[in-house]
Amino acid sequence: MSPATITNGTKAVVPKLDRPLAFHGTLIHSLSQSEVEIADSALLLVDVNGKISGLHKDVKQDQIEQTLSEQGWPTETVSLTILERGKFLVPGFIDTHNHAPQWTQRGTGRGHLIMDWLNNTTFPHEARFADPKYARKTYASCVDGFLKQGVTTACYYGSLHGEATKILAQICLEKGQRAYCGKCNMNRESPDYYKDASAEESIAVTRDFIDHVRTIDPKFELVTPILTPRFAVACDADVLSGLGRIAAEDPTLPIQTHFNETPQEMEITKKLYPEFDNESDLYEHFGLLNERSILAHCIYMDEYDMSRLEHLKCGISHCPVSNTTSGTFGVAPVREYLRRGMKVGLGTDSGGGFSSSIMDCMRQAFVVSNAKKLSSGGADESLSFYETFYLATLGGARVCNLDGVIGNFKVGKEFDALEIHTVGKNAGIVTLVEDTDSTAKIFEKFIMSGDDRNIAKVFVKGRSVK
Amino acid sequence: MSPATITNGTKAVVPKLDRPLAFHGTLIHSLSQSEVEIADSALLLVDVNGKISGLHKDVKQDQIEQTLSEQGWPTETVSLTILERGKFLVPGFIDTHNHAPQWTQRGTGRGHLIMDWLNNTTFPHEARFADPKYARKTYASCVDGFLKQGVTTACYYGSLHGEATKILAQICLEKGQRAYCGKCNMNRESPDYYKDASAEESIAVTRDFIDHVRTIDPKFELVTPILTPRFAVACDADVLSGLGRIAAEDPTLPIQTHFNETPQEMEITKKLYPEFDNESDLYEHFGLLNERSILAHCIYMDEYDMSRLEHLKCGISHCPVSNTTSGTFGVAPVREYLRRGMKVGLGTDSGGGFSSSIMDCMRQAFVVSNAKKLSSGGADESLSFYETFYLATLGGARVCNLDGVIGNFKVGKEFDALEIHTVGKNAGIVTLVEDTDSTAKIFEKFIMSGDDRNIAKVFVKGRSVK
Ligand SMILES: [Zn+2]
Ligand SMILES: [Zn+2]
Repeated sequence: MSPATITNGTKAVVPKLDRPLAFHGTLIHSLSQSEVEIADSALLLVDVNGKISGLHKDVKQDQIEQTLSEQGWPTETVSLTILERGKFLVPGFIDTHNHAPQWTQRGTGRGHLIMDWLNNTTFPHEARFADPKYARKTYASCVDGFLKQGVTTACYYGSLHGEATKILAQICLEKGQRAYCGKCNMNRESPDYYKDASAEESIAVTRDFIDHVRTIDPKFELVTPILTPRFAVACDADVLSGLGRIAAEDPTLPIQTHFNETPQEMEITKKLYPEFDNESDLYEHFGLLNERSILAHCIYMDEYDMSRLEHLKCGISHCPVSNTTSGTFGVAPVREYLRRGMKVGLGTDSGGGFSSSIMDCMRQAFVVSNAKKLSSGGADESLSFYETFYLATLGGARVCNLDGVIGNFKVGKEFDALEIHTVGKNAGIVTLVEDTDSTAKIFEKFIMSGDDRNIAKVFVKGRSVK
Repeated sequence: MSPATITNGTKAVVPKLDRPLAFHGTLIHSLSQSEVEIADSALLLVDVNGKISGLHKDVKQDQIEQTLSEQGWPTETVSLTILERGKFLVPGFIDTHNHAPQWTQRGTGRGHLIMDWLNNTTFPHEARFADPKYARKTYASCVDGFLKQGVTTACYYGSLHGEATKILAQICLEKGQRAYCGKCNMNRESPDYYKDASAEESIAVTRDFIDHVRTIDPKFELVTPILTPRFAVACDADVLSGLGRIAAEDPTLPIQTHFNETPQEMEITKKLYPEFDNESDLYEHFGLLNERSILAHCIYMDEYDMSRLEHLKCGISHCPVSNTTSGTFGVAPVREYLRRGMKVGLGTDSGGGFSSSIMDCMRQAFVVSNAKKLSSGGADESLSFYETFYLATLGGARVCNLDGVIGNFKVGKEFDALEIHTVGKNAGIVTLVEDTDSTAKIFEKFIMSGDDRNIAKVFVKGRSVK
């Protein structure tokens, strides 16, 4: 795509496909929190706008042509992919909590308490994004890196810099990743070399960033600006109320922040905002807690917090990798969230943990649910295999309020998908028992022992981006 | 190497190198439980027998030739590798607990209690190793797969089949992996289609296997037979005492089994062996608990068990990935083991967990040590970054009683090593900040976010095996 296409507000930011797509073979997706459909011999059709226009089941190889022609698509006008045994489609992964600047600090500074980690490892590095050249280089690597790992939608915290965050948005458009991008607000409890100069500036840069995204992606087709107060510790009341005003003015804007992440953070928050008994009341007071909110971590929850988030329909980003790699071993009450039907997805929290892979998040979500089962005396059952897959896909879409658009292969949704190979040159570290493994077992092997090498192709809105 | 070389008992099983090796650049290795040495500008020399013959520090590029010639090695006779920034050597990883037949079932059957998992997932698959063709194909893939992931030494449980286990030993020799290989003993509490026909046969097959290894690797240069009672549940007293007799007859043979792995297993053991109050007394009674024992898991330990294993100088294989992926979330008291100076290494327990990578084990060892810190009220400090690296290398060597031979780069040891690249085509998913990352930070990024793609070369006894 030429830059002209991207920046011209009147054209679609994702160009129409040259031809419709069709896939014949196995597709696997979540229908709900507990239901996964494994459809062998499915024929999935994607129109030139990147929308799923048909999903036919039990189609034999020799029926493909006829099914396509019934759709009005002569075979020769369609790009047809036959998925052989060991290959299948899953919905793209959704990363509901990701700090883009931390891409190049992944895996460092583990084991530290949050404030030490921010001050020693994170802030010195994020400060470098004052330099647009550094931002461009790092964000290009970051977006490439996450697309490569199958993240078709990411909720990015940027640095505090307006210019760098515009660059991040631009790169998502160029590379075709669906993203929520936010200029990070932080005007206190941060080092002088890395904080917003004032509440006014913090809000002004945010407004300018939102306006800018409107010029490069007017309908928020791929990139949506997201309000991003880092956390209450780093934001004074003027910043929080300023952001709350923007949220009230524009009900299309999502909101993201950290919530009940660590005992240390919660204690400092109480000291700084003694008028609030808890973070629910605090963020709600400033107009930042509603159905558009994506709250990372949500680990230390009493019934009050739990029921407020439930009542306000907030989305929860579960980050099991970073929650166990930092100085505390925190386990969010995910079973209880699911029991209440709340929106839960996974976040890599890139930078905070040892991995930037949603696949590692799925596995670690299972591991920490085992820990929770133990600590709850068995009351909180471990996550099932299908539940973790749900969290990575449809659950994440719900957290982003995008489940009408993406998250599974329902007809009418946009085609954000991964073509998975467990055989051939993309087998990576996965090994099949060729004669006996069922489709369900192959899928299990991919989820439990696979990595980005198995993600042979990545599609966002029908467009091939890996 | 020709098969003739391998099977001819009079020749070395690892042929002499064509020329000595020299490496100039960074090398990183554990000197002790808590000490890691990061030596930049080191010059490491490996003689044609695969032994480390020199380790010179702070050698400038222009001093290499002179240092080599002082060694009596004219530069043109040496294979010299210059390790640029982002590349370095670490000792090969040691996997102290690995079920070779489970290579192709990795990641399946998670969340089940041990007996269900054995009966439904594992035994039906292990039974297939009655077929030598299946064994050869799977073990070749397994040994390749672990070498690729940097495992230069593996403690393998085979299936119960003598023939298949001979094939495993042969493949380790062919591919050049250092290995302890054991025919698995199990004559009860297992399905009829998969158990030793009798105690006599179980012992006879074991003796025959040991004899066979003596013919293909007379000095146990690469492959050592290991006594492998699966666990007391699956072995009656005749099998355990038969194995104890072999252990007493030949004090060069190591021993491996599972120890205090899950509450379910421990309960059944007590029912089957009511005369013993605990597994320490049980295995000790049969002559299977001594300084040659490698005990997997060792999770549920009271002071009695702890002090018996300490007193008897047993080695402990910590398997944090499988311990958290199965139906229970078990955390071994590794801090206490280290406090007592006991021998501890890491095991992938391939098949039981979601990963076959020692790198994932290191990360998960840290994660579960965080959980232990929490559950111990802070008494058991989390593992440090350097401690997990120790466990994967020198700690594993101590568990195998091979720390006089491998585990770090001490002069006189054999050269089992990994050449790590974090830049260039082997960068994988690791990203450096090129101008500022120190060697220590690059190392941290590799350990915390790297994978087998960063392991560019693997050496066992000086021989390049990847
Ligand atoms: Zn975060
Ligand atoms: Zn095991």
